[in-house]
Amino acid sequence: MKLHGTMTVNSRGHLEIGGCDTVSLAGEFGTPLIVLDEALIRETCRQYIEAFVKPYPGNQVVYASKAFSSPAFCRIMAEEGVGLDVVSGGELYFAIMSHFPAKNIFFHGNNKSPAELEMALSHQVGYIVVDNADELKMLNSLAASLGVKPAVLLRITPGVEAHTHEYIQTGQIDSKFGFTLPNGQALAAVKSLADYPCLDFKGVHCHIGSQVFEMDSYAHTARIMFEFLVQIRQETGIVCPILNLGGGFGIYYTAEDRPATIEDYAAAVMDTVKECAGKYNYPLPRVIIEPGRSIIGNAGTTLYTVGTIKTIPGFRKYVAVDGGMADNIRPSLYQAKYEAAIANKMNLPAEVTVSVTGKCCESGDMLIWDIELPQAERGDILAVPSTGAYSYAMASNYNNLARPAVVLVREGKADLIIERESYEDLIRKHKIPARLQGRNL
Amino acid sequence: MKLHGTMTVNSRGHLEIGGCDTVSLAGEFGTPLIVLDEALIRETCRQYIEAFVKPYPGNQVVYASKAFSSPAFCRIMAEEGVGLDVVSGGELYFAIMSHFPAKNIFFHGNNKSPAELEMALSHQVGYIVVDNADELKMLNSLAASLGVKPAVLLRITPGVEAHTHEYIQTGQIDSKFGFTLPNGQALAAVKSLADYPCLDFKGVHCHIGSQVFEMDSYAHTARIMFEFLVQIRQETGIVCPILNLGGGFGIYYTAEDRPATIEDYAAAVMDTVKECAGKYNYPLPRVIIEPGRSIIGNAGTTLYTVGTIKTIPGFRKYVAVDGGMADNIRPSLYQAKYEAAIANKMNLPAEVTVSVTGKCCESGDMLIWDIELPQAERGDILAVPSTGAYSYAMASNYNNLARPAVVLVREGKADLIIERESYEDLIRKHKIPARLQGRNL
Repeated sequence: MKLHGTMTVNSRGHLEIGGCDTVSLAGEFGTPLIVLDEALIRETCRQYIEAFVKPYPGNQVVYASKAFSSPAFCRIMAEEGVGLDVVSGGELYFAIMSHFPAKNIFFHGNNKSPAELEMALSHQVGYIVVDNADELKMLNSLAASLGVKPAVLLRITPGVEAHTHEYIQTGQIDSKFGFTLPNGQALAAVKSLADYPCLDFKGVHCHIGSQVFEMDSYAHTARIMFEFLVQIRQETGIVCPILNLGGGFGIYYTAEDRPATIEDYAAAVMDTVKECAGKYNYPLPRVIIEPGRSIIGNAGTTLYTVGTIKTIPGFRKYVAVDGGMADNIRPSLYQAKYEAAIANKMNLPAEVTVSVTGKCCESGDMLIWDIELPQAERGDILAVPSTGAYSYAMASNYNNLARPAVVLVREGKADLIIERESYEDLIRKHKIPARLQGRNL
Repeated sequence: MKLHGTMTVNSRGHLEIGGCDTVSLAGEFGTPLIVLDEALIRETCRQYIEAFVKPYPGNQVVYASKAFSSPAFCRIMAEEGVGLDVVSGGELYFAIMSHFPAKNIFFHGNNKSPAELEMALSHQVGYIVVDNADELKMLNSLAASLGVKPAVLLRITPGVEAHTHEYIQTGQIDSKFGFTLPNGQALAAVKSLADYPCLDFKGVHCHIGSQVFEMDSYAHTARIMFEFLVQIRQETGIVCPILNLGGGFGIYYTAEDRPATIEDYAAAVMDTVKECAGKYNYPLPRVIIEPGRSIIGNAGTTLYTVGTIKTIPGFRKYVAVDGGMADNIRPSLYQAKYEAAIANKMNLPAEVTVSVTGKCCESGDMLIWDIELPQAERGDILAVPSTGAYSYAMASNYNNLARPAVVLVREGKADLIIERESYEDLIRKHKIPARLQGRNL
C-alpha cells in the first residue's frame, strides 16, 4: 500500500496518520471511521495555488464540494484561499453555514430549481454557471424580480470524450450538461444573452469528466474553449474575462493509476491558454479550475474492523469488514479499485491473497478483489486509503447501516467533524400512522 | 406504462394511486415523493399467504426488510401475518420500535457483530441464520453467557447460479455468504453443532439471488436443499423441521420482465418439497420464503417534478427531474430499467422519445434511457413506478440532496411514513472544530 501525505508506520507497527495511531482512532471513535489528513489537504491546496494562482494572480482554484461536503472542510478551503463549487441548495447551505465567502462560490447544476437559484441570488454567490437556455430565462426573471445582476458563466459541452468511466465522462456531445459547442447551441446561447439584461456574462465553463489522467485532454479542451472565446469576440464583440475549465484531475488509487503532478496539470492548461492568448491577441483570461477528488481523495482513509473470515478452498478467502457498499459504493458502481493494509500489522509481510467484502446482504458488496495482506484476524483494523472523495458523499443507509464518523487529524490530534449515525438517527424521519399503532398482534 | 395495483387514471387525466390524485400528492408533499400503494402491498401479502401458508400451515412468509425498511411498513407486515427478515442491528431496531413479534424475526448477515448478535438474543428473535463457522462459535458463547438457547438455521451456499445480475446472484460457490454445500463445508458445519450446546439447530437456509424469474431455479434449489436435509439425517440422525429457501422472486419493471405468478412460484417450490418428502420418506418441513422486492417493489411509485428539458438535435432529448441517482441508484448500479408516465398527462399520447436524467452532477445520473412520453414541460409530474424496493433503501445524500418523503396511500388518504429531509437534517451530524470557527476570512 502506498503511503500518502503524513502516513507513517509507528514504533508499534501501526499505521499513523497526522500523528495519530489509526488503531487508537478506531478504538476511540469506533469503525467504520473515515480519517482525513488535514496536512495533506492543505498541502494539496497549496500546490494548486502555487501552480495555478501564484504565477497568474487572477486565476482561482475552486473545490468541487460534491466530492466531500462538510462545513468544517469548507472552513479549511476558505483558510487556504480556495473557492467552492456547489451543485445544489444543500451544498450551498453547508457553505453558508460555514460562513464561506460567497463571492468565491460557483453554483453549478443541470437542473437547478427556482428555489435554489433564489437562494444563490439572495446569498450573492460569486458566479452562477448556467447550464441551459431554460435556466437563462428563469435566472434572468428571478434576478429582475430581486433587483440583482448576477455574474454568470455558461456551461459549454465542448464535444471532448475524456478517457474515463462513461458515468463520469461529461464532455461528449450527448450529455445532459451544458450548451453544445460543435452544433452552434453554445454560440446561440451567448448571443441570446442580449435578451437577458439582468445577467452579467463573465465567461464560459466546461468539465470533461472525472478521474482523467491525460494531460493532452486538458490541453485539447483548453484550446477548444479558448477558440470559442475568440469566436464569441468575433461574433459579438464580447471579451470574456473568465475561462473555467472544471476539474476531473485523476488521482492514485492503485499502482494502475499514474497521475501527473499538479505542476504538469497547470502547465498543460496554462501553456495552452497563454499560447492561445498570444496567437489570437486575446487578453489572458482568469482561469478557474475545480478540483474535488484531487484535494480530498488521497487525504481520506477508511478504517474498518475485520469480522468474518471465510475460506472457500480452491476459490477464495473472504475477509469481511464492518462496512461496505453502504459507506463506499465506488467499487460496485464504477468498478473502482483500492489498496489496503492491516493498520495493526504494518510490518508483517503481505503474503495472503484475500478479497475484502462488506456486511451488506448483497454479493455486489465487495470492496477489493484479490489483494495481498498479512494474515487477517477478527478484530484487525483494515485501512483503505484514498477514500476521501465520493465515499462519504455517496454513502447510504442500505441495510439500515449507520453512516460512519469522520475525523480530521493533524499533529497528533483528532477532531470529529461528522458524528457517527445512531439507530435514533436512522429512525428520526420515520413515522407510524396512528391507525397502524397500538394493535396487539 | 403498466398500471399496477390500485393505479387508475381519473377524470382529470391524472394518475391516481390508492384513490389519491398523484398530482395533488406532489403538490401537498413536494417531490421527489415515493407513494406506496397499501392495498397492493396487502394484496400481495395475502397472495403469498394464500399460496404458501394456507395449504401448508407450518410455512411462513417473511418480508426481507432490506428492500425497504420502515417501522410503519413493519406494522403492515405484522398485521398481514408476515414475518420479518432483518440483516443488521439497524433493521432489527426498526422491528423492535414497531413492536414486531420477535418470534417471527429471522436475523441474517454474513458479518454480524457481537453487539448485533447480543441485541438479537436479548430481544429473543425467532431465528438466527448463522452464516459461518466463526459466527457459530461466537453465538454459542454469547448464548452461554446470556443463558439462552437460540433457534438457529445454517445459511447454505447450494452452488446454484441463478440467472440475474452478478451483484445480486448469491447461490454460487464463490460467495461471501454461507457454508458451501458442494465441498462438504455445509455438512461439516452441521456436525460441528454437536460442540455448541447452546444453539438449537432448526434447519437450513439458502438464497440464490434477486430478481430471479426461472421457476426451474427455485425447484432445482429446493431439491438440492432437501437432499441436503436427507444427507444430514443420514449422517447425524437429525431431522430438520425448517427449510428456508430465501427470496428473490422477480417482478415486472418493464415489458422485458415476465414474472411468474405467486401461485406458480409456490407450486414450483412446494411440489418439489412434497415430492422429495415422499421420495425420501422425510416429514414435510416447514418451508420459509423471504420475499422483499415482490412485496414492496410494484407498490412504490416515485413522483418527480420535471425541470430542465434539453434537446440536442440528432442526439437526444433530455428531461431532467428533481431527483435521480441519489434517490434511485438502481439504473446506474444495476443497469435497471423502468417505465414512466407523466402523471398529469395520462390521456395524452406517448409520442416523444426522451431520456430521463436526474439533477446530480454526474453523467451516470440517468433514470431511463429512450422512453416514449407525451410532450413534457417544466412543472409536469413524472411518475416512475415499481420503485418501492431498493430505491429509498439505497438512497444517499449525494450532491447534498435531501432524501424524499414517503407516503402510504389507501382509500383516498395519504399517511406520511417518512418525512422529507431538510437542510437541517443534512447538517445535523456535522461539526466545525473550535479552531476552525470564527476566523474572519
